[in-house]
Amino acid sequence: MTSSAPIIILHRPQLGENIGSAARAMLNFGLTELRLVSPRDGWPNPAADTLSAGAFQAGVSVGVFETVEAALADLGTVLATTARPRGMEKDVVDAAGGVQLIQARAQKTGILFGAENHGLPSEVVGLADAILTYPVNPSFASLNLAQAVGVFCASWGASQGAVGRWEGEKAGVEPPASKEDLIRMFEHLEEELERAGYFYPPDKTPLMKTNIRNAFIRGNWTTQEVRTFRGAIKALAHGRGKARVVRDD
Amino acid sequence: MTSSAPIIILHRPQLGENIGSAARAMLNFGLTELRLVSPRDGWPNPAADTLSAGAFQAGVSVGVFETVEAALADLGTVLATTARPRGMEKDVVDAAGGVQLIQARAQKTGILFGAENHGLPSEVVGLADAILTYPVNPSFASLNLAQAVGVFCASWGASQGAVGRWEGEKAGVEPPASKEDLIRMFEHLEEELERAGYFYPPDKTPLMKTNIRNAFIRGNWTTQEVRTFRGAIKALAHGRGKARVVRDD
Repeated sequence: MTSSAPIIILHRPQLGENIGSAARAMLNFGLTELRLVSPRDGWPNPAADTLSAGAFQAGVSVGVFETVEAALADLGTVLATTARPRGMEKDVVDAAGGVQLIQARAQKTGILFGAENHGLPSEVVGLADAILTYPVNPSFASLNLAQAVGVFCASWGASQGAVGRWEGEKAGVEPPASKEDLIRMFEHLEEELERAGYFYPPDKTPLMKTNIRNAFIRGNWTTQEVRTFRGAIKALAHGRGKARVVRDD
Repeated sequence: MTSSAPIIILHRPQLGENIGSAARAMLNFGLTELRLVSPRDGWPNPAADTLSAGAFQAGVSVGVFETVEAALADLGTVLATTARPRGMEKDVVDAAGGVQLIQARAQKTGILFGAENHGLPSEVVGLADAILTYPVNPSFASLNLAQAVGVFCASWGASQGAVGRWEGEKAGVEPPASKEDLIRMFEHLEEELERAGYFYPPDKTPLMKTNIRNAFIRGNWTTQEVRTFRGAIKALAHGRGKARVVRDD
């Protein structure tokens, strides 16, 4: 967890369940500081504990404040989440844009989320440096509070190398097969197909081979997978009783 | 909602609350097809209705399947969500990468999510074209099921122009003030500050002015805001009793 992770601030939250779920989502994505402004049911709240999956014990700290001004006092940058722009002269960012803004400013940052029933009052939005909103379905725009927190936290998490990023990588432990191994596999396959009378008419054979090779190449196979498939080719060729000679390399 | 929005598939979900919350998050971001594979408590489920905020009535359809194979039968591309890679030879993408993959393939797509307690069995992950995972906190990696659905849906939603995107735009309805208006405002302010003896020592005056101008320019004010502030300057200058002459342009 980087020390610069934003602080999540819930303004007058109503349901302990949402506070707990928000804390769980925060810690899932490496955020550890939660501030509550006048939570309706006080604090601590057993319903929050139940839904937190242990997040409060595992690292999320909670500060309780009477006023939003007190909760924001030590922050440099504040984003206020709203379901839609309020006609205010503020930048409006989505989750990814919000993360970019926070990183560009590199200040202690808080993300404000409003109550379940009314969202943030305009005077609270007015305290923020920018508005954070999500491109939602206009006819079903009301997000659950914990979901709204989770969507932001996931964007933050995705920007943090520290918690891991796997985009475009391979899950497997084995490196891909060498092209040499692949080509031998292709030759093996084609030889057996040839023997089986598969390639017809002869003038289409090169194109048919290329199409097959392309299909296999996309799979990006490992050495083991190549080995396995060569065994399969051998078995198929034997099984059908058409191969007189079986390669053994 | 585009017709190509992915289908969300919950494999053996346990809690109706999570099914309902997932449906709400889906519809928030424009996804409308939910499939359930052997939901533990059957279907329909009153707990799901309660947490859905009306999503089932407002547009989310539900199909119930006995097997995962049946639930995937008509799909071209399937992503399986897991908390971490399984050592399988599959591409691994995060939420944004998953959306890119789906859009590149442009096939009917399903996103598989596992049960609350065990996630997806490996044989189900094996049916998928790629693994979807989020860069989570390794020491607190277990997402709530509905949160996991919501994070993907938000990424999908953010990629869809149809549901609106505001990144970098202005929320306000007024255009910014012209530079001419701004410069007149600066001159007004500086004239009054000059009169008030603010600029001292004289050789620092140009730098002080530049610093002030820079601070104001960052605000990207509207004409109305310039007008308002000029009224404020005037008032301040009068109020302090230091202004002999008040500009009136």
